[in-house]
Amino acid sequence: MAKHAFYAQSGGVTSVINATACAVIQTAQKYPNKIGKVLAGKNGILGALREELIDTSKESDQDIEALRHTPSGAFGSCRYKLKGLEDNRAQYERLIEVFSAHDIGYFFYNGGGDSQDTAHKVSQLSQKLGYPLTCIGIPKTVDNDLPLTDNCPGFGSVAKYVAVSIREASFDVASMFETSTKVFILEVMGRHAGWIAAAGGLAHENDEDGPHIILFPEILLDEKAFLKRVKAIVEKIGFCSIVVSEGVRNQEGKFLSESGLKDAFGHAQLGGVAPVIAELVKSNLGYKYHWAVADYLQRSARHIAAKTDVEQSYAVGKMAVEFAVSGKNAVMPIIVRESSKPYCWSIGEAPLEKVANIEKKMPKDFITRDGFHITDKCREYLLPLIQGEDYPPYQNGLPQYVKLKNILIPKKCPTFKNL
Amino acid sequence: MAKHAFYAQSGGVTSVINATACAVIQTAQKYPNKIGKVLAGKNGILGALREELIDTSKESDQDIEALRHTPSGAFGSCRYKLKGLEDNRAQYERLIEVFSAHDIGYFFYNGGGDSQDTAHKVSQLSQKLGYPLTCIGIPKTVDNDLPLTDNCPGFGSVAKYVAVSIREASFDVASMFETSTKVFILEVMGRHAGWIAAAGGLAHENDEDGPHIILFPEILLDEKAFLKRVKAIVEKIGFCSIVVSEGVRNQEGKFLSESGLKDAFGHAQLGGVAPVIAELVKSNLGYKYHWAVADYLQRSARHIAAKTDVEQSYAVGKMAVEFAVSGKNAVMPIIVRESSKPYCWSIGEAPLEKVANIEKKMPKDFITRDGFHITDKCREYLLPLIQGEDYPPYQNGLPQYVKLKNILIPKKCPTFKNL
Repeated sequence: MAKHAFYAQSGGVTSVINATACAVIQTAQKYPNKIGKVLAGKNGILGALREELIDTSKESDQDIEALRHTPSGAFGSCRYKLKGLEDNRAQYERLIEVFSAHDIGYFFYNGGGDSQDTAHKVSQLSQKLGYPLTCIGIPKTVDNDLPLTDNCPGFGSVAKYVAVSIREASFDVASMFETSTKVFILEVMGRHAGWIAAAGGLAHENDEDGPHIILFPEILLDEKAFLKRVKAIVEKIGFCSIVVSEGVRNQEGKFLSESGLKDAFGHAQLGGVAPVIAELVKSNLGYKYHWAVADYLQRSARHIAAKTDVEQSYAVGKMAVEFAVSGKNAVMPIIVRESSKPYCWSIGEAPLEKVANIEKKMPKDFITRDGFHITDKCREYLLPLIQGEDYPPYQNGLPQYVKLKNILIPKKCPTFKNL
Repeated sequence: MAKHAFYAQSGGVTSVINATACAVIQTAQKYPNKIGKVLAGKNGILGALREELIDTSKESDQDIEALRHTPSGAFGSCRYKLKGLEDNRAQYERLIEVFSAHDIGYFFYNGGGDSQDTAHKVSQLSQKLGYPLTCIGIPKTVDNDLPLTDNCPGFGSVAKYVAVSIREASFDVASMFETSTKVFILEVMGRHAGWIAAAGGLAHENDEDGPHIILFPEILLDEKAFLKRVKAIVEKIGFCSIVVSEGVRNQEGKFLSESGLKDAFGHAQLGGVAPVIAELVKSNLGYKYHWAVADYLQRSARHIAAKTDVEQSYAVGKMAVEFAVSGKNAVMPIIVRESSKPYCWSIGEAPLEKVANIEKKMPKDFITRDGFHITDKCREYLLPLIQGEDYPPYQNGLPQYVKLKNILIPKKCPTFKNL
């Protein structure tokens, strides 16, 4: 009888990770001789450790299809990193115990760098223990920081959201600056890498277009140069529109978001670099400002997902299953850029050991020399990733996102307490 | 020869006010015997006072048509309220001077309550001075606070943005709360009225759906009851999603956004009620939180505008011109709700004197008795306003919004200094 497959979503969710889940389930159905059911981990890998396995065969075809346009993690995700094999071998052995009890022969792990590392370790241990398990990593992260793959599923849609949003807000400020706001600041995600902030730069097609300044986590903020630039732009164009990454740091390397705000009781206020930048502008230049913090809105904005991103998210899920049924192991499908103009891509393959725990940084030549914007090379890289619209269906004015039944299969193992 | 028309955009812009401008210009073109050119004020009414008049006939038909899908104010808007007739009669006389010099016989003023008041006063003065001027107000405000009209053009699209965004963010949190964020807070506009915050409530179709709590400016925040509610929801559902209006006040009636945050130098931090609510939750309940501030993104989000809103914004502009050419004066087109199910609307008429300076509040029975959500009656009112999608055209993954040439006509009057 065909072995079952285990699929789990890991880490911060995206607006398109469910498109990958949809692909895994739909593709597995095409190989009934090789794959039985797809069992999904409730809340990611925790679902395996706790033996909380969702039977996806209980969902209707229609609901599985609707995953393609539903943001977030339909089975639940988690921020839970398995420790090293030496530190907590028991956790890995537990996974094998649960997989074995439920006749699971395939492990699909959909996440970022940490998850690929886990998938790699599970693969190693299954071999050591003599338990045959096909381990396939599937890339996902809005941070766009996985190596080898040209880009990461999930990133393109955040990129599109940020570029569209800063374009629209800049139009707003452009029409009001005479008597109102002169500096607008949009804070976006990206604690360690400026990929998301960089994407805002795509809205800037000529000098007048916002954003006029981008602040990257890669560049320590030079306050004086920044303020000089803001002033010059306001004097030339009338207003200044800024995208700032949450991970921007000051000259001492300290996160700006942790540098200033305190509540009425003197407690440090967590998060929010936009108001810190706003206050810096206000107190030094006196300009009226407004700021926005996109936070989760950006990574859940399925309503404005990039078609390219949705297609690639589906494609990596599909290929993951095809890798598995063709006998590959300990690999991850990657996105290969064949050409930028016109944009052509295909799905390639990378060994998990080469993906695990390596963070892809923005190349230095993607940021202009002054540190305040993106280069043409960066634009050429980013532009294809936000192409196309892929609107969800609407009912009563609201997008119709699916909520699955998520029915667990009966447990067979003893309770595991080593979480 | 036909008199020219003057059109100006006033106050905070919206994602659909240009659809109204488009309608005014296109409809005026249908009456060449009655209306000459449409001259638009550069930066709103300031354009009339400074004699900076944009000749819209210099724009291509295609560009005027593109206004229909372009957010913000294409001719510039301003926050500039004319004083009372007694306090500064010179300003009103200046308007007449400029209108007279350029053979302007129609005054279309597109704005909120203050603007309707101005239009009314200009109408009165033109009669007193014996200068024939047809004054038509055109409603616009995301605040939805104009009287007589069932709703205000501009509001429906913000409402849709907020409902879509909180739905998406709630899906995100729902899939992560086990090991991550338990409380999510989205701050939206609405300093004096909770219409926009209320719209978020449309995403809540059953108990599990966010938002679970809405904080209105109409209800002084009862911290204890609020925290108790948050705790109960987290314990029941696992997470709590909150929409908070920027205008929420504490029991002393003070804006929460001004109540707490200080920067490193001890200066009060302006704006941002979301982080204040977040800190309240964190320090009392210990839950991990995230917050977002939508700010200008919400009112410029043409990419997710409500079709109903776009159509109504166009319809009031069209009717304003038709009122004018049919000899009406000192009136404003209003939206009349014929029925909610199915939603039917028509354009009616209100005298400016009855619109000016009256703020429409949210009815008491639109907010639940506990003060934390909207009632079915509110839902019935709001739901039709977010119906339909009206996507802008895209190129290279970004919405294509038009920038007009905005060519000024030569000045004829002396410089006016009384601004």
